[in-house]
Amino acid sequence: MLRDDLTPTTRLITGASSGIGLALVEYWLSRQHPVIAVSRHASQCETLQSLQQKGLPLRCIDTDIADPDQLEALTKRLKEWEAAPQQIINCVGLLHDATTGQAPEKRLEDINLQRLQQSFAINTFAPILLARALLPLMPRRQPGIFASISARVGSIEDNHLGGWYSYRASKAAQNQLLRTLSVETRRRYPQLCVLALHPGTTDTPLSAPFQRNVPEGKLFSPQRAARQLAEIIDHAGEAQHGRFIAWDGKPIPW
Amino acid sequence: MLRDDLTPTTRLITGASSGIGLALVEYWLSRQHPVIAVSRHASQCETLQSLQQKGLPLRCIDTDIADPDQLEALTKRLKEWEAAPQQIINCVGLLHDATTGQAPEKRLEDINLQRLQQSFAINTFAPILLARALLPLMPRRQPGIFASISARVGSIEDNHLGGWYSYRASKAAQNQLLRTLSVETRRRYPQLCVLALHPGTTDTPLSAPFQRNVPEGKLFSPQRAARQLAEIIDHAGEAQHGRFIAWDGKPIPW
Repeated sequence: MLRDDLTPTTRLITGASSGIGLALVEYWLSRQHPVIAVSRHASQCETLQSLQQKGLPLRCIDTDIADPDQLEALTKRLKEWEAAPQQIINCVGLLHDATTGQAPEKRLEDINLQRLQQSFAINTFAPILLARALLPLMPRRQPGIFASISARVGSIEDNHLGGWYSYRASKAAQNQLLRTLSVETRRRYPQLCVLALHPGTTDTPLSAPFQRNVPEGKLFSPQRAARQLAEIIDHAGEAQHGRFIAWDGKPIPW
Repeated sequence: MLRDDLTPTTRLITGASSGIGLALVEYWLSRQHPVIAVSRHASQCETLQSLQQKGLPLRCIDTDIADPDQLEALTKRLKEWEAAPQQIINCVGLLHDATTGQAPEKRLEDINLQRLQQSFAINTFAPILLARALLPLMPRRQPGIFASISARVGSIEDNHLGGWYSYRASKAAQNQLLRTLSVETRRRYPQLCVLALHPGTTDTPLSAPFQRNVPEGKLFSPQRAARQLAEIIDHAGEAQHGRFIAWDGKPIPW
């Protein structure tokens, strides 16, 4: 499903005002592909605003995708614009909460219901509610992508270190939702490829407190992570559909 | 870790007033092992009440394990009793909600936030909050079990049919939490074995609306399911720790 760089592909990217989401926006805009940037605070993101001022094919929408009412408003707006994104890439994720000071759990005693609820609302429920809201807007007669950022630590089989209960489990649950979606779309949206992506540890606010043990050369800049993920997304086909794929293109066990 | 049937082992069983939970209570009581039966409505369950009236070593506690305040009250009560269960078996689970008429999702459009929240509260958050609350009460110098009912449809790798989004994902998330727990307990509770169990399709209220396609001989009575699970639980050791085990003792891929 490799696309010629000259054929514009409209992409909708969530989590678009920072980290990997923003870097993906910049990557595709630099290749003249239209982007719809979705974020809670897209209209307050200086980088997005300056990209728009350069006349690049960018539209920004303020939406909290964890809120079903806001997802409904997003859908309505996209319909008004007659937007039909061929690719949707969800980059919203929560590992720690700077506003509440909640860090990922080191041990069983650190688990609490509120943290579980918050992690799952953002990492698990939001991506599948996004798919539910937006898949009907995607063109059915063209190859399409629904991709969402997962994380290797969400792999159950690969879990040998423990800790990070809420994050690990909310990503495993997202993986299962994406896998379930991939079974359903095979029938209903046969040209759609569904992907769970592991970006590698990337130097973003999400990973900032946890970069100490990353091996030399394995902490990616957001730009590098975005380039690597864009390569996977734009080359993804049947072999990747419904799979959990790392930044280097290799599948990760569930 | 096979225990002599003559050495009594105290077990705490949740979801104890119906289905597999109740059958496990009856199984172990019939072998004269003490049981603490936990359920939202244990005190209203006629079977539990009549077992108590027979003078069997059974205590019943009304607790909704999805509610952290009630879990705290349960812990307090167990401390008052000086109860130190060697085995905890969680049999609470939600597939459909008879009170709201919510059936598992057949397609993407059936997903909604409320159903996701409800499924995860019961199938995912409750078991790990139970572990958090009760592990400190378990004797550390004896072999112990923390087991929770999962389901083969929670396997991401084995998911070829799709559908049942909330149930599948909430069980996959539970699996990841149990796996994470098993890593932590290896260090802190080295004699504890953590298990995610697939009971097979069992003729209980949970599966009642979905038994049509179960192959001949593969719909277990609660008594048979309980006997099979009890065999696994009472023989479980290092090879099973942190694994997802089916009713026939075979591991299931995550």
